[in-house]
Amino acid sequence: MNEDDAPEGERLARIFLTRVVEPGDEVAGRWLREFGVEEVVRRLRDAGARLPGVSQQRWAGLLARAAQAAPHRDWAAAREAGLRFLSPGGPEWPAQLDDLEDARPVGLWVRGHPSLRLWALRSVAIVGARACTEYGAHMATTLAAGLAERGWVVVSGGAYGIDGAAHRGALGAAGATVAVLACGVDRPYPRGHTGLITRIAEQGLVIGELPPGDHPTPSRFIVRNRVIAALTRGTVVVEAAHRSGSLATARAAQRLGRHTMGVPGPATSALSAGVHELLRDQTVLVTDAAEVIELVGEMGELAPQRRGPVLPRDLLEPAARRVLAALPGRGTASAGEVARGAQTSEDDAVGRLYELRSLGFVERHGDGWKLTRQAVTSVRQDHGQC
Amino acid sequence: MNEDDAPEGERLARIFLTRVVEPGDEVAGRWLREFGVEEVVRRLRDAGARLPGVSQQRWAGLLARAAQAAPHRDWAAAREAGLRFLSPGGPEWPAQLDDLEDARPVGLWVRGHPSLRLWALRSVAIVGARACTEYGAHMATTLAAGLAERGWVVVSGGAYGIDGAAHRGALGAAGATVAVLACGVDRPYPRGHTGLITRIAEQGLVIGELPPGDHPTPSRFIVRNRVIAALTRGTVVVEAAHRSGSLATARAAQRLGRHTMGVPGPATSALSAGVHELLRDQTVLVTDAAEVIELVGEMGELAPQRRGPVLPRDLLEPAARRVLAALPGRGTASAGEVARGAQTSEDDAVGRLYELRSLGFVERHGDGWKLTRQAVTSVRQDHGQC
Repeated sequence: MNEDDAPEGERLARIFLTRVVEPGDEVAGRWLREFGVEEVVRRLRDAGARLPGVSQQRWAGLLARAAQAAPHRDWAAAREAGLRFLSPGGPEWPAQLDDLEDARPVGLWVRGHPSLRLWALRSVAIVGARACTEYGAHMATTLAAGLAERGWVVVSGGAYGIDGAAHRGALGAAGATVAVLACGVDRPYPRGHTGLITRIAEQGLVIGELPPGDHPTPSRFIVRNRVIAALTRGTVVVEAAHRSGSLATARAAQRLGRHTMGVPGPATSALSAGVHELLRDQTVLVTDAAEVIELVGEMGELAPQRRGPVLPRDLLEPAARRVLAALPGRGTASAGEVARGAQTSEDDAVGRLYELRSLGFVERHGDGWKLTRQAVTSVRQDHGQC
Repeated sequence: MNEDDAPEGERLARIFLTRVVEPGDEVAGRWLREFGVEEVVRRLRDAGARLPGVSQQRWAGLLARAAQAAPHRDWAAAREAGLRFLSPGGPEWPAQLDDLEDARPVGLWVRGHPSLRLWALRSVAIVGARACTEYGAHMATTLAAGLAERGWVVVSGGAYGIDGAAHRGALGAAGATVAVLACGVDRPYPRGHTGLITRIAEQGLVIGELPPGDHPTPSRFIVRNRVIAALTRGTVVVEAAHRSGSLATARAAQRLGRHTMGVPGPATSALSAGVHELLRDQTVLVTDAAEVIELVGEMGELAPQRRGPVLPRDLLEPAARRVLAALPGRGTASAGEVARGAQTSEDDAVGRLYELRSLGFVERHGDGWKLTRQAVTSVRQDHGQC
């Protein structure tokens, strides 16, 4: 488990802010940029001079929330529950979230072991209708499994319907998946997905902006979507009616310069109407994982595996080095074999393997993992061979 | 019935050529351009000097076919059967076929009364798989009916599956439809569509390059597709497997600068795979007639109805003037009412109404027809009113 290396003071300040400010509040984002975290927290906590851009009434509301916040207690409880907290600019912070500018999350709460930063580098969002059809669920599962089998991380929102099908498809392929929640990460929502979200936290990552215990609201679902869009290289919409929230995710992805993709369906299906609307406007039609990767894999600057490892083996964390050492010099090994070789759990091994994939050391081929050609070379060089 | 006003000699020469040269033969097209029709016919008929670009063997084959040709007899029999023959450049020749350059048809055989030239101005092709699904047939029928109800002419190939569904959708909406056959127009193919093609010839047009009695062949279907693509403002592919002939029609339309459109279907359907392939490459996704018209209706230079009538009423043929006069000054009339007022058949009235639509005199609104605002104005001006 990576520890966020933000100074204790800044971390507590940001944890405090997640209790006071709603996610995606651009006025608060501007405060942070203009006054700095400490000054903003000081004024809120000590009922100081009103910050610009809010009414007296709204300021009073913020002060009331601030008076209730107890960041030390939150942080202690979170550590107890095995949660982490990532601050912008920290070693595990996904830099692409900075594209959100003043709507950038104040911080992210995380359940799960892998590095969000590394996983996000090779991730694709799959989103869509809660009340999806069997066809939509089948497509989400198949796409997610296909992406996972090729070493890609599947990001979704943990909801019923397409989201759940996408997470399950990735999990079923022993793959990597991230659920971005619109509530506290300790508080699986919807309740019917408690088992699924727990499984995602074990094999992957459950993340969110809301502090532990917080509930989702309609507007929180909407602002959550911008995180899904920003975190990933592209967003695939599987089924969506006109005016669905998934379309908002896709539009956010377009604004952020991410790829947007849509899975077609019958023109007679109201649940494909929103997707077809997207497909008529700067969105690429995709029917399988290969077509998704053909598109998102083009961004050469984010595809280190093409150039081989981007950092020397010696800079890897010890746990990652052990997993790397457990891979055979030739051919593939299953995640289970790697886990046994590295003396760790299979879930941990999968997490490390996806991290190593992002760094260019390993590749996934169907059910197996193997060293990249460049990694084999670098291993030989490390050992003085050539 | 318009009479082709090509000189008798040129018409007979072109009828002769339809017996000797295969449709779409660009070598023969170059001969016509470089030597002229008469010289090409003379050399073929009198076994003159070999024309360039063909082997001795192929030349001998052409001479053998030429020896069998009997254009006077063909023309007499065709007139007897109520067929017409259109020559390039004649008054009813659709000028957009000239975009085919050396692959332009030598001439077109026509069954049916309306003006092909006028109908083609506001036409859309709907093509797709013969072995279509119920979904595909439903979409083709619905699209065609929607286009017909808005005054557009539906062009297709008369085949089983999508083609037949498109023709039936237009006919069922008392609309205009053109079947482009890959065989003699007197020889309905497939046999199971004899009734449908007969009905199209009564209410619309059945056209083709092959002389009466000629059979379709696989290659004739393929070259026929270029005529469908060139004749229309755009081509909609409803269902098509990978490597289907309908995709060739769409690619031909793209090369000719026409709009290409595709109707999506489930990503799991092999019969939508070809359409999805198109939709990933410069083809617009459409789900209803309004979206088709939004695209093809943009070509202002071909949309005279926006500017009102393009020629004075006095230049209309008498039959068209009678139909125009049968329309009420205000509100709409059905085709049947117009037919009664103009003392003609309903099929003839529909044909004339679509011609008048192309010329900007009338509009179709659902089941009714009405004068355009500009036509009403011009009628008043004709009568000295203002």
